[in-house]
Amino acid sequence: MRDEDYLRRVLTLAKKGAGMVSPNPLVGAVVVKDGRVVGEGFHRKAGEFHAEVSAIQKAGSRSEGATLYLNLEPCVHFGRTPPCADFIISKGIKRVVCSMEDPNPLVSGNGFSKLRQAGIEVDVGKLEKEASRLNEIYLRYVTTGLPFVILKWAQTLDGRIATRTGESKWISSESSRRYVHRLRSHMDAVLVGVETVLRDDPRLSPYLIKGRPPVKIVMDSKLRIPLHARVFQGARLILATTTSASKDRIEDAKAQGAGVWLLPSTKDGLVDMIELMKEAGRRQITSILIEGGSRVAASALKAGIVNKLMIFIAPKLLGDGTPAVSDLGIKQIMQAPVLKEISIRRCGTDLIYTAYL
Amino acid sequence: MRDEDYLRRVLTLAKKGAGMVSPNPLVGAVVVKDGRVVGEGFHRKAGEFHAEVSAIQKAGSRSEGATLYLNLEPCVHFGRTPPCADFIISKGIKRVVCSMEDPNPLVSGNGFSKLRQAGIEVDVGKLEKEASRLNEIYLRYVTTGLPFVILKWAQTLDGRIATRTGESKWISSESSRRYVHRLRSHMDAVLVGVETVLRDDPRLSPYLIKGRPPVKIVMDSKLRIPLHARVFQGARLILATTTSASKDRIEDAKAQGAGVWLLPSTKDGLVDMIELMKEAGRRQITSILIEGGSRVAASALKAGIVNKLMIFIAPKLLGDGTPAVSDLGIKQIMQAPVLKEISIRRCGTDLIYTAYL
Repeated sequence: MRDEDYLRRVLTLAKKGAGMVSPNPLVGAVVVKDGRVVGEGFHRKAGEFHAEVSAIQKAGSRSEGATLYLNLEPCVHFGRTPPCADFIISKGIKRVVCSMEDPNPLVSGNGFSKLRQAGIEVDVGKLEKEASRLNEIYLRYVTTGLPFVILKWAQTLDGRIATRTGESKWISSESSRRYVHRLRSHMDAVLVGVETVLRDDPRLSPYLIKGRPPVKIVMDSKLRIPLHARVFQGARLILATTTSASKDRIEDAKAQGAGVWLLPSTKDGLVDMIELMKEAGRRQITSILIEGGSRVAASALKAGIVNKLMIFIAPKLLGDGTPAVSDLGIKQIMQAPVLKEISIRRCGTDLIYTAYL
Repeated sequence: MRDEDYLRRVLTLAKKGAGMVSPNPLVGAVVVKDGRVVGEGFHRKAGEFHAEVSAIQKAGSRSEGATLYLNLEPCVHFGRTPPCADFIISKGIKRVVCSMEDPNPLVSGNGFSKLRQAGIEVDVGKLEKEASRLNEIYLRYVTTGLPFVILKWAQTLDGRIATRTGESKWISSESSRRYVHRLRSHMDAVLVGVETVLRDDPRLSPYLIKGRPPVKIVMDSKLRIPLHARVFQGARLILATTTSASKDRIEDAKAQGAGVWLLPSTKDGLVDMIELMKEAGRRQITSILIEGGSRVAASALKAGIVNKLMIFIAPKLLGDGTPAVSDLGIKQIMQAPVLKEISIRRCGTDLIYTAYL
């Protein structure tokens, strides 16, 4: 087996922590001695053992003289657990093969330096692209303090998310909806506009699967949300509002158990999404799934806060109807946002179109 | 090599006639003797040798006792060339492996009967699905007398074919446009609405490639087309109009070299597309590429004349703008046309979404 093969296993292990480790990165680790895997581990949950510690502990005395494979630089700071670099050195690891540096200012190359100073051979950069994609949430958050934002919608081939009478159940297939619920459970928060709540009364929980429910954020500049909306049930609800909301409404919403974030508004009187992202980041929300509708999608795109698109394309045509994205103020095709690193996957008869902005 | 392998070669050969054989089918032929290919051929052009004749002639005396591979049943009728079944029998072919029966009422199993009566072993049905797809144009035309219709458009991911100011140059990439020109050259006709001519003044010729230019059909119920439009140049132009068009305009258009088809109108005063398809069929137009705009697309879908969709999806978002398809009169998602047999291909950064209706 080559280094890359072990690193692929490391990435597979790391992924098992998806949705559980926030605000930490996904990390996997494999210990190899004399061409055999003698220990494996991954980071399961913030506050629990880091991947490298689990793997080395499993390897036991066999870690002496072994190679440790990792997707992210080991830490050198005291967080909720002691520094991994010291642990690696203390257990006699001879060589460390790691996909990438941790850009967290508290680490940022210091982990590798420490290992090298202790005489450990360190090899960095193999499968770096894959490792960065795996931790796209962590990397954005740790370098900017802002959440990684995925904008998602389900549309017909011709770009409609509802009929002109507003019906949107169901554009996409059951398997796509399950996929979305899995995605929700991997994100710290999901976000919709109050229009979606008024029209569909969604639960926004990943009820089709077993998985951690994300925090729910509803953008509602005037706090029009009905207090009996289903979104008040289950995981924590945050109402992102502005000073246009009455104090009574705010108190009522709080009494119903919701958190209320009072944010600056744009000149159109809507919640300023850049400020909303900053607030979410301050609250350690590292990832947000924006689930529409068309006006929220347009606001998010115009605010420039979207990192990734995931569009579910159903094999249907609607002609007239609600567009996926409302006005972006674009007059010439040259001005249209261009999507990058497109990938396509089938989900039953639907298509999942993934791209970066 | 197995039968299927030779049949795949047959399909590859048959494809070489694409765009040249109309109203005939695409046919390829391979002659195999003692496990070796001794003759190959394909139908190059209506009026010229059929595939089986070319292949057997190349094989010469080696066709005695050989196996003939074909994608479509050999003919038994005198068309522009004598019946192929007789020729096959006369050259001592021992076995015929053919993907499918020719549903043309003049053939329809008679070719196979004739071969069997002459003591030839006939094996039918291998790669039938692939063979039907290859001849989807011919099969539709020969069984219904109507052209096979492909509806094509280029859109942004969110289903827009132009900005709200009407700009549509260029939604899709240069490679997609070349692909469309190749497609045009494989079709008997291309069709647009007069709105497209008024707005874009397109040539509708496959000028980006070397290929046969298709007939151009413009739907123009009131004959508003400007006589200096570029579509008058090059290959034959047909104006599909109604009695709402003035006699003077009709005479002027004819004087400019256009053909004029006077057709019944729908209750909205538009050209009745079902009647248009019947007329095209009568004129031996076996395939039509509908190139938009949104109203023509909607009319075609509502009239139920579309067989296949080819949607070019560019990696862009426009928000507001011209929708790909205008009103289809759909109120509930249940009523939306559902697309079948979806296939996806990349064309540069664009995606080509192909489906059947």
